[in-house]
Amino acid sequence: MYREQIKVFDCTVRDGGLINNHYFTDEFVRAVYQALSKAGIDYMEMGYRSSRELFPPAEYGDWKYCDDEKISRITEGIESNIKISIMVDTYRVKEQQFKPADESPIDMIRGATYVKYIDSAIELIRKCHDLGYETTCNIMAISREIEPDIIEALEQLAKTPVDVVYVVDSFGALYCEQIEYLIKLYQQHLPGKTIGIHCHNNQQLAYGNTIEGIIHGANYVDGSLYGIGRGPGNCCLELLVGFLKNPKFDIRPILKVIQDYMIPMRDQLEWGYIIPYMVTGILNEHPRSAIALRKTSQKDKYAEFYEQMRDSLD
Amino acid sequence: MYREQIKVFDCTVRDGGLINNHYFTDEFVRAVYQALSKAGIDYMEMGYRSSRELFPPAEYGDWKYCDDEKISRITEGIESNIKISIMVDTYRVKEQQFKPADESPIDMIRGATYVKYIDSAIELIRKCHDLGYETTCNIMAISREIEPDIIEALEQLAKTPVDVVYVVDSFGALYCEQIEYLIKLYQQHLPGKTIGIHCHNNQQLAYGNTIEGIIHGANYVDGSLYGIGRGPGNCCLELLVGFLKNPKFDIRPILKVIQDYMIPMRDQLEWGYIIPYMVTGILNEHPRSAIALRKTSQKDKYAEFYEQMRDSLD
Repeated sequence: MYREQIKVFDCTVRDGGLINNHYFTDEFVRAVYQALSKAGIDYMEMGYRSSRELFPPAEYGDWKYCDDEKISRITEGIESNIKISIMVDTYRVKEQQFKPADESPIDMIRGATYVKYIDSAIELIRKCHDLGYETTCNIMAISREIEPDIIEALEQLAKTPVDVVYVVDSFGALYCEQIEYLIKLYQQHLPGKTIGIHCHNNQQLAYGNTIEGIIHGANYVDGSLYGIGRGPGNCCLELLVGFLKNPKFDIRPILKVIQDYMIPMRDQLEWGYIIPYMVTGILNEHPRSAIALRKTSQKDKYAEFYEQMRDSLD
Repeated sequence: MYREQIKVFDCTVRDGGLINNHYFTDEFVRAVYQALSKAGIDYMEMGYRSSRELFPPAEYGDWKYCDDEKISRITEGIESNIKISIMVDTYRVKEQQFKPADESPIDMIRGATYVKYIDSAIELIRKCHDLGYETTCNIMAISREIEPDIIEALEQLAKTPVDVVYVVDSFGALYCEQIEYLIKLYQQHLPGKTIGIHCHNNQQLAYGNTIEGIIHGANYVDGSLYGIGRGPGNCCLELLVGFLKNPKFDIRPILKVIQDYMIPMRDQLEWGYIIPYMVTGILNEHPRSAIALRKTSQKDKYAEFYEQMRDSLD
């Protein structure tokens, strides 16, 4: 698949940070930045800009806050055309500051929200747009929303200067036909806007569904190295680059950083295809029950977990 | 997805046998048989019926030969409606014997072939059909065949009594649009025949492509427990059962046998998403180079492996 408008977006440090409280070493983040730059990836998301009042620094690493100065120290001296993004939970904005874009190393601010908090997303998007940033709205847990609510949110977003609106399958619950439906719904209610797709891998469908999204017109596509992310993780960046035939991409630096960093990291941090997350995926549930289970001695009692989940939903 | 004609086919012992020379214990095979029976799975493939002249018994376990008496000892005393299948490489038939189906515990014989050996498949299929077995033809490595050769093979198969003809993505190289193309090509040239689909998971697309096959009309769908199989393995049976809404299926016995047997087995045998197999998949190559690499100290040198593979193909 070659389409010039397609932009590949890496979430390694941001989504991966959800499984280690954002404590990545500077060496690791710098190695990822260098590899993605060499590989021709379009965007790298460094983490969240969270409120230090709501999330005290004693409990989180630097990538929970993504201060401009921190990012600049990482990227310093590395030749790169990659754009830098940070994510903000739009319903948890408190004292966070945002400099004008031309004084910041950050190019894009992605607003993560649920449909019910869309007003907070619109407010943040307008503010960041006025500061000169590219903006997105990532509407999470879309598999649990009913059509009229989705349409209302999209129609409000259509009136804002937001650049990209994402279909986000937070629960890894969607099948290809549902991806097609959502992409088309977004296109219909967001004339002129770019559509993005971010999939979770609960059912090993993150990559397949991302391809489905691309076929139907999504142009911003998210992945992470070796699929790192909470629970089952994300679409694998290396698979995306293998699929897209644009010669600007080079898979070799990606394979190298995976062998050097992700394989050893996988021994320390758990992510990937793990049955309890598959169960929450097929039941269209938040992964919190699976996350809790994996911290107990019952972590591999899949049949019992399934029964409990089913019983709690009936 | 509910369609009464869909039959779920388990390859755990047959495809899994490719990574342990078919040395599964009787206890394991019996546990799988029991679990699949309880779960309402339609078919269980026990292994290959291979020639003892070509494959000496000193080197392989019982599931390389699948003698009728062996199968009967496994299934004895277990209540079950599951049908039993064996696979035969049609181009390696030598002294193997096949009893009439009504004297055998086997219901179905699947002929595995390449397009170039289609005549051997037709000969075996006719013979097995006359003995009373259900039959399939599994045309392997279909991602490497050109359309006129595929059509010629399909038109020959159309004239035989074969029940099911499978699209087999041996190299895990196909994307969803290619699956759609092949399913439609098979339907066009095999009027009245049932189409099956068997996918490998090199690019994490085995399940997504199987769904794609189902959407376009494939009615025999292959999976294995926790995806066990050579290299990246197969479509996960548990995912398929989660997708198909037919109430005859019960996922709980499947989850139980995975926790009891597959998770411990995964510590002993390697399968799943492993980068060198991803590389052979995106390059549409036989996995043999990746299998060889994984036996060396260079097994995680992904970037170098990719370069070697690319160089050898240019």
